[in-house]
Amino acid sequence: MNQRSLYPGENMGGALETKVLTTYSNVYEIEKWLLRKMLGQLGKPLIRAVLWSGEEVSSSDADPTARIIIRDRKAFFKLLINPDLNFGDAYSAGDIDVEGNLVEFLETVYRALSKTPQDGGFYGYMQKTFNRPRPNSMAGSLDNIHHHYDIGNDFYKLWLDGEMQYTCAYFPTSAATLEEAQIAKMDHICRKLHLKPGETVVEAGCGWGSLALHMARHYGVNVRAFNISRQQVIYARAVAEAAGLSDRVEYVEDDYRNIAGRFDAFVSVGMLEHVGINNYEELGKVIQRSLKEDGRGLIHTIGRNKAELMNAWIEKRIFPGAYPPTLGEMIDIFEPAGFSIIDVENLRLHYAKTLEHWLERFETADKQITEMFDQQFVRAWRLYLAGSLASFSTGWLQLFQVVFAQPDKNNLPWTRAHLYNPSQPPL
Amino acid sequence: MNQRSLYPGENMGGALETKVLTTYSNVYEIEKWLLRKMLGQLGKPLIRAVLWSGEEVSSSDADPTARIIIRDRKAFFKLLINPDLNFGDAYSAGDIDVEGNLVEFLETVYRALSKTPQDGGFYGYMQKTFNRPRPNSMAGSLDNIHHHYDIGNDFYKLWLDGEMQYTCAYFPTSAATLEEAQIAKMDHICRKLHLKPGETVVEAGCGWGSLALHMARHYGVNVRAFNISRQQVIYARAVAEAAGLSDRVEYVEDDYRNIAGRFDAFVSVGMLEHVGINNYEELGKVIQRSLKEDGRGLIHTIGRNKAELMNAWIEKRIFPGAYPPTLGEMIDIFEPAGFSIIDVENLRLHYAKTLEHWLERFETADKQITEMFDQQFVRAWRLYLAGSLASFSTGWLQLFQVVFAQPDKNNLPWTRAHLYNPSQPPL
Repeated sequence: MNQRSLYPGENMGGALETKVLTTYSNVYEIEKWLLRKMLGQLGKPLIRAVLWSGEEVSSSDADPTARIIIRDRKAFFKLLINPDLNFGDAYSAGDIDVEGNLVEFLETVYRALSKTPQDGGFYGYMQKTFNRPRPNSMAGSLDNIHHHYDIGNDFYKLWLDGEMQYTCAYFPTSAATLEEAQIAKMDHICRKLHLKPGETVVEAGCGWGSLALHMARHYGVNVRAFNISRQQVIYARAVAEAAGLSDRVEYVEDDYRNIAGRFDAFVSVGMLEHVGINNYEELGKVIQRSLKEDGRGLIHTIGRNKAELMNAWIEKRIFPGAYPPTLGEMIDIFEPAGFSIIDVENLRLHYAKTLEHWLERFETADKQITEMFDQQFVRAWRLYLAGSLASFSTGWLQLFQVVFAQPDKNNLPWTRAHLYNPSQPPL
Repeated sequence: MNQRSLYPGENMGGALETKVLTTYSNVYEIEKWLLRKMLGQLGKPLIRAVLWSGEEVSSSDADPTARIIIRDRKAFFKLLINPDLNFGDAYSAGDIDVEGNLVEFLETVYRALSKTPQDGGFYGYMQKTFNRPRPNSMAGSLDNIHHHYDIGNDFYKLWLDGEMQYTCAYFPTSAATLEEAQIAKMDHICRKLHLKPGETVVEAGCGWGSLALHMARHYGVNVRAFNISRQQVIYARAVAEAAGLSDRVEYVEDDYRNIAGRFDAFVSVGMLEHVGINNYEELGKVIQRSLKEDGRGLIHTIGRNKAELMNAWIEKRIFPGAYPPTLGEMIDIFEPAGFSIIDVENLRLHYAKTLEHWLERFETADKQITEMFDQQFVRAWRLYLAGSLASFSTGWLQLFQVVFAQPDKNNLPWTRAHLYNPSQPPL
């Protein structure tokens, strides 16, 4: 039991540790050499690796941000072969642990990686070969969405805001609460769309329905909101019913490709990540045929500065089929369809802040979530939330809000001042 | 002289009209048929064409917005072969005239064109074959820039604002004066860059130097401003000297590709149109090597919704080498260099408003400009200003302001509220 002191991370249960310590205790020089190579490949982050024997390896003499504990030889070799995918699996299983602040550890790794070219070499090859987002055909989309969003509303209720918004909030000041920031996000979007009472809005991918409800309640519009997650649609309908807004908000359990009719505004918050770049031009056509001559739209999505595949583990275990596009890739939605891009805002740091709140609430609900699922699930989601936070805070991920309009629409807000001064009408 | 009543446009002098009326007076059916075909190709705009015989052809029975007067058969055939290029030449020469409001006439044509596919057919072929922007090698850029900007500061003084800004202004309200709007534009840019006293700024393509001066005077920064137009640099240096700011603003007569040193901010207003898309990746490298770790930048440029060549006449006669890019094409500046795009604002309607002011002042200075140059020059510039106005008002051209930053820069303004509330600090 005195071996425990070597692994001051989480208590993964005695059985696992016993196995680790009895089966693998000998570390060869070749393994330490490989570990040093791997740290070099990662851009020599200021971290220290502790091997199953208790021996330590680091790529720098400076004080490390955190220590990564590799509990057995099998986890070590899996990490070596495909760190993108296997770090997450091994961390979830408890075969790898992180001592110190998980977010800071991940930030350190991402910052080091961002200063190291990743296009070539062995890892580049492995990534290109094994790390492809799953296709988002209609059936594929359904599978992919069920995987993530239908794991239970009760789970999400434990750490999202009261309105169940699972997308980047907008913090008017960094001191705003998560609840305030999620409401501010909806208002920010409604103002960007300069909605007028009596107008019609179509929403593609409506989550648990809060934005559609907010638009109807506070901006006097009628909304038709699409979603292929059954659990979310059922939840959204119940909330709209209770709010007495069912006559003005219709939740449709269907794919965005089946949107019919013409609307004054199109809005999509956090769906594009699941669309797949091969479908962007088709999405543009769907939006074009759905918008009136005077129409405008807004797409809110996670994005990137440079095209890169989604982290293999997130794509495989958390978000199948997900792909955050660059602004350049998003252009395929707008240019072929002839839209005019009016406004792009990058809210990356707002997503880092949102994730700080989610992670804090998640940790508070730790016990309840473990009871609902198991320890492995909790560790996987902790890594996913911490990794996302680190991705936004280090600039690996972006959050784009893109406002667009029909090309000859001239009754646009004259400036963006109305977004920051609610008493000022947009036109 | 009673024939004059047929051509109530501008008085082009008796000699020309006599020539027109004596040399060509017979119009054949084939020519009217060709004219109808041409109007069809243009998307059947609500205009009427008056031929040299006085006969009229129109593509619709509805009341026309304007009448185009074609004064001879030669102008007619040139128009038929390459309308993009030859309309401008014939209008400048007075062989074609427009009766009615020139801007409204051009808006009518552009709106009709925008609803008609232009990729194929005879005109598509002609455009693709003959209409290529001139290359912007360093020597080429020098020639191209001299062509436009070195035709005389006195000419530009007659119709630009007091600070000689030859780029889109920013109208906080549409009622602002041109002078107010040009100052507001400079403040808008400085706020977007959240400049702090003592910082250094490099400017690529500084025009007559007003932005560099404004930044130094009101934001306390030191500016190194590049321009290859000798006349503009001489003018800018004299103004800085008179303002006692020569120690903080340096105007360099050199190409942006020769920028050396590292700065806190990069700014370029109205230069990208002259860079050429093949040079965008190199421009990105220049900016990347010129910005400190904490650096940010802003590019202000005319743009498009879809990739298209510049109007042949503007490219040949007014702005050699000019090409307004789409946002998708601009991505080549930012993505390969690893920048993060923070904010994009489309100010298309502000350029239409700016051009309204310029055109009005230009018309007021009509006589003086005719004395400086000649009637043909005045007509060419009138068409250029009116055509640009119509391009922005109908959505054929866009105006993008793109703010970008080093990818891991986290001390960005938290929201954009500070742009609209000057008393609020950006950070």
